[in-house]
Amino acid sequence: MLVVKKFGGTSVADKDRIYNVARRCIEEYKKGNQVVVVLSAMGKQTDVLISMAKEITPNPPKREMDMLFTTGEQTSVALAAMAITELGVPAVSLNAFQVPMNTTAVYGNARLKRIDTERIRYELSNNKIVLVTGFQGINQYNDYTTLGRGGSDTTAVALAAALHADECEIYTDVDGVFTADPRIVKNARKMDEITYDEMLELASFGAGVLHNRSVEMAKKYGVQLVVRSSLNENEGTIVKEDVKMEKMLVSGVACDKNVTQIAVLGLKDKPGVAFKLFQHLANHNVNVDMILQSVGRDGTKDISFTVTEDMTDTAIDTIKRHEGKSLEYQELNVTRDVAKVSIVGAGMMSNPGVAAKMFEAIYDANINIMQISTSEIRVTVLIDEKYSERALISVHDAFGLAG
Amino acid sequence: MLVVKKFGGTSVADKDRIYNVARRCIEEYKKGNQVVVVLSAMGKQTDVLISMAKEITPNPPKREMDMLFTTGEQTSVALAAMAITELGVPAVSLNAFQVPMNTTAVYGNARLKRIDTERIRYELSNNKIVLVTGFQGINQYNDYTTLGRGGSDTTAVALAAALHADECEIYTDVDGVFTADPRIVKNARKMDEITYDEMLELASFGAGVLHNRSVEMAKKYGVQLVVRSSLNENEGTIVKEDVKMEKMLVSGVACDKNVTQIAVLGLKDKPGVAFKLFQHLANHNVNVDMILQSVGRDGTKDISFTVTEDMTDTAIDTIKRHEGKSLEYQELNVTRDVAKVSIVGAGMMSNPGVAAKMFEAIYDANINIMQISTSEIRVTVLIDEKYSERALISVHDAFGLAG
Repeated sequence: MLVVKKFGGTSVADKDRIYNVARRCIEEYKKGNQVVVVLSAMGKQTDVLISMAKEITPNPPKREMDMLFTTGEQTSVALAAMAITELGVPAVSLNAFQVPMNTTAVYGNARLKRIDTERIRYELSNNKIVLVTGFQGINQYNDYTTLGRGGSDTTAVALAAALHADECEIYTDVDGVFTADPRIVKNARKMDEITYDEMLELASFGAGVLHNRSVEMAKKYGVQLVVRSSLNENEGTIVKEDVKMEKMLVSGVACDKNVTQIAVLGLKDKPGVAFKLFQHLANHNVNVDMILQSVGRDGTKDISFTVTEDMTDTAIDTIKRHEGKSLEYQELNVTRDVAKVSIVGAGMMSNPGVAAKMFEAIYDANINIMQISTSEIRVTVLIDEKYSERALISVHDAFGLAG
Repeated sequence: MLVVKKFGGTSVADKDRIYNVARRCIEEYKKGNQVVVVLSAMGKQTDVLISMAKEITPNPPKREMDMLFTTGEQTSVALAAMAITELGVPAVSLNAFQVPMNTTAVYGNARLKRIDTERIRYELSNNKIVLVTGFQGINQYNDYTTLGRGGSDTTAVALAAALHADECEIYTDVDGVFTADPRIVKNARKMDEITYDEMLELASFGAGVLHNRSVEMAKKYGVQLVVRSSLNENEGTIVKEDVKMEKMLVSGVACDKNVTQIAVLGLKDKPGVAFKLFQHLANHNVNVDMILQSVGRDGTKDISFTVTEDMTDTAIDTIKRHEGKSLEYQELNVTRDVAKVSIVGAGMMSNPGVAAKMFEAIYDANINIMQISTSEIRVTVLIDEKYSERALISVHDAFGLAG
C-alpha cells in the first residue's frame, strides 16, 4: 500500500514534534507500506521569512519572496529525514526541483500542473521514506513558485493522485472534521465521513481544516482523504465521493468572520450597471460573494455583497475611483463587523424545510439576518459578528448535531 | 565588462550590510558593466543550521545536511535581490538548480565540475544583476552538495572562468592581502599585487583571506582575482600570474596555529616502514605535512610530521591500531601547542640566503626551531605556539616588509 501523509507547520514546530512525525511515518513503514510525507515550514517560520523580507522592503518582488519562502519547507524535510534516519529507517528529502513539481507561472499563487513520479518511485523502491516539500513548485522558467494558502494540502493530494496512492492522510491539530468548531460549540461531534461537496462548502465557509483547492483536487482525481490528529491515534474523518452512513439532513455548521459587507445604494438604474460594478472589482482581483440586488428609492438600485476583510480597502477604492464616471450612486456603506454562518449537508437538496429551520434557529437566538445566500447543499446567513457564536450554537442544536 | 563579485557571510549579516552589498553592485552596474554576485549564507546562519541538525541527531546524514545548508545561501540571494530591486535596479537570484552548477557526488566536500552559463547570460542580457548562491552545487543524482571550506570563493572563481569574466572581486573585511596578519604585526603592509603561487602558499600556511582551492582554480583558468574590503573603496590586492612591480625577495609572512606535531620514535628500520606509516594515515584521510625522518638510537628510525588539529586524534588512533603489527615503534610523542611560521615569495627561488636570514630572525627572537620545511617559494619553521606572534614580528622586520 502507498500512503501519502501531510503534516502542517505546528506538527514540525520543534525537535519533539519532528520526532513525533518521524515515529508516525515509521509506524506506517513498519506495516510494510510505502510512505511519502509532505511537510510545511516549521511553526512560525513562514512569518519569520516574511518579516525578514519586510525589513528589506515593504513590497518584495513576488519571485524573490517565493525564492525565500521555499527555504522553509526544505528545512523541515531535511530535519525530518535526519530524525527518521536516526530512528533507524532510511529516508530522503526532496524539494520541488528534485521531484520535480511543475506549476503555472504565477508567483505566490501558482497551481500544480504536473508531478513527475520517477524520482519518488525510485526512492520508494529503495525502501526509503520519502519526504517532499509542500507548498512549493517550479514554473516553466525554472523559478520557484508557491501555491498560496493551504498549499501543502494541495501538494499532498496532488502527489497522492499522481502516485495513485491508496490513502492520503492530512494530519492536523484536531481530531477530524466536526459538525461545528469545537472551540465554540462544546458538544460538536466529529464526523466519521463527509462528501467532497460538503467538505468544499465547509472549507469555503470557514471550517478551516482543509483548503478548498485541495478538496477540489481530491474530488477531481478521486483521492480519498483522511483528516486526523497528529497528536493521537483517533481515526479521523474520511472525505470521499459517497458517504454510506445514514444521511443527515445537515452535516455541519460553519462560521466565517473574515467578511465585510459593502452596500452601494442609489445606483442609477442603467443597463449593465451591476455588470460594470463587478467587472471593476474583478479587474482588481476582488472576489465577491453573497450578492443581493434590490430596488432602491426613486427608481434606483441597491447592490450589496460581501468580500474578505483583506480585500475591503481595494474594493472601496475601486468603487470610489469610478464614482460619477461609469458608476453613479448616492451612498456607499461598509459594515466590517459581520459574519457568515452556514449549514452544509448533501441531504438538504431534497428537503425544502431546512432553510426555514435555520432561519427559525437564528430568530430564536434573537439575531437579525442581514442577508441570505444558498447553494444546493448550503444555506448561509450574514449576521452581526458579535452574535456569531450564539448563532452557531443555536443552529447546531436546532439540527440535533451534538455528539 | 563582466564582473563577478563575491561577498562573504559577514558582508550580508543584516539589513544594513545587505544594502551595502546592493549599493556596491549597483555602482558597478551603473558603470555599464554586467554584474554577477556570489553570496554566502548570512552571518552565523550556517552555525544556526548546524545546531538545528545537531539537536535532531549528533550524526546527521551528509546528504540531508547539505539539503539543510543550501537554504542559507538561498535566503541571502533572495534578500539581496529584494534590496537591489528596492533601489531601482532589476535583479534576480539563482540557486544551484537554476544555474545549474554541477559538482562531483561527495556531500559536504564536492568539487565543481561544470557550470551552465545560459540562464545567467539570459538574465544579464535582460539588464539584470544576477545573484548566485555560493558554496552549493548539485551532483549527478540531482541532490544538493556543498563545496566545503571557502566554497563561496571557489563558486565565484568558477563562475568567472565559465563566464570569461573580466574581473573577479572577492570582498572581505580586510583591505586585501597583507605582508603579515595586521592584527598581530601592526606595521604589516597591504600588497598591491601577488602571484597565484605566492597566494597559494600563503593560503595553505595560514593567511586565511582566500581558500587555496579557489586560488588553484583561478591559476588554472587564468582568472585575475581582486581581494578587497566591502567596507571601503580601497583598491585591494590583485592576484595574478605575473607581478610586474619590483620583485621583493619575500612577499609575506604567515602563521598557522592549527597544527599538531606527531613524532614516532624508535621505528624498527625495515624497508618501506615510512611508506606504511603514511599509507595508513592516508587511508584515514589524514593529510600530513612537514615530514622529517632521522636516524634514532640502535639503528631505528624517528619520523615526525605535522597534521591539522582536527585530524590529530584520528592520526594517533590510526598509528596505535597498527602498533606491533605493520608498525613497530618505541614511543609516540604528540605536541599540540605548535605553530608554523612561513615566509613566501617568488623572489626567493634564486636567492639562497633567504632561508638563513629567516632562521637568524627566529634565533634573534630567542625562539627554538623544532622543524624546517621548504618549497621553491616558501620556507616554513615549526615553533612553540606561544612564541608565534613574536616570531611573526621578528621575521616581518628582518625582511623589511613594513609599510
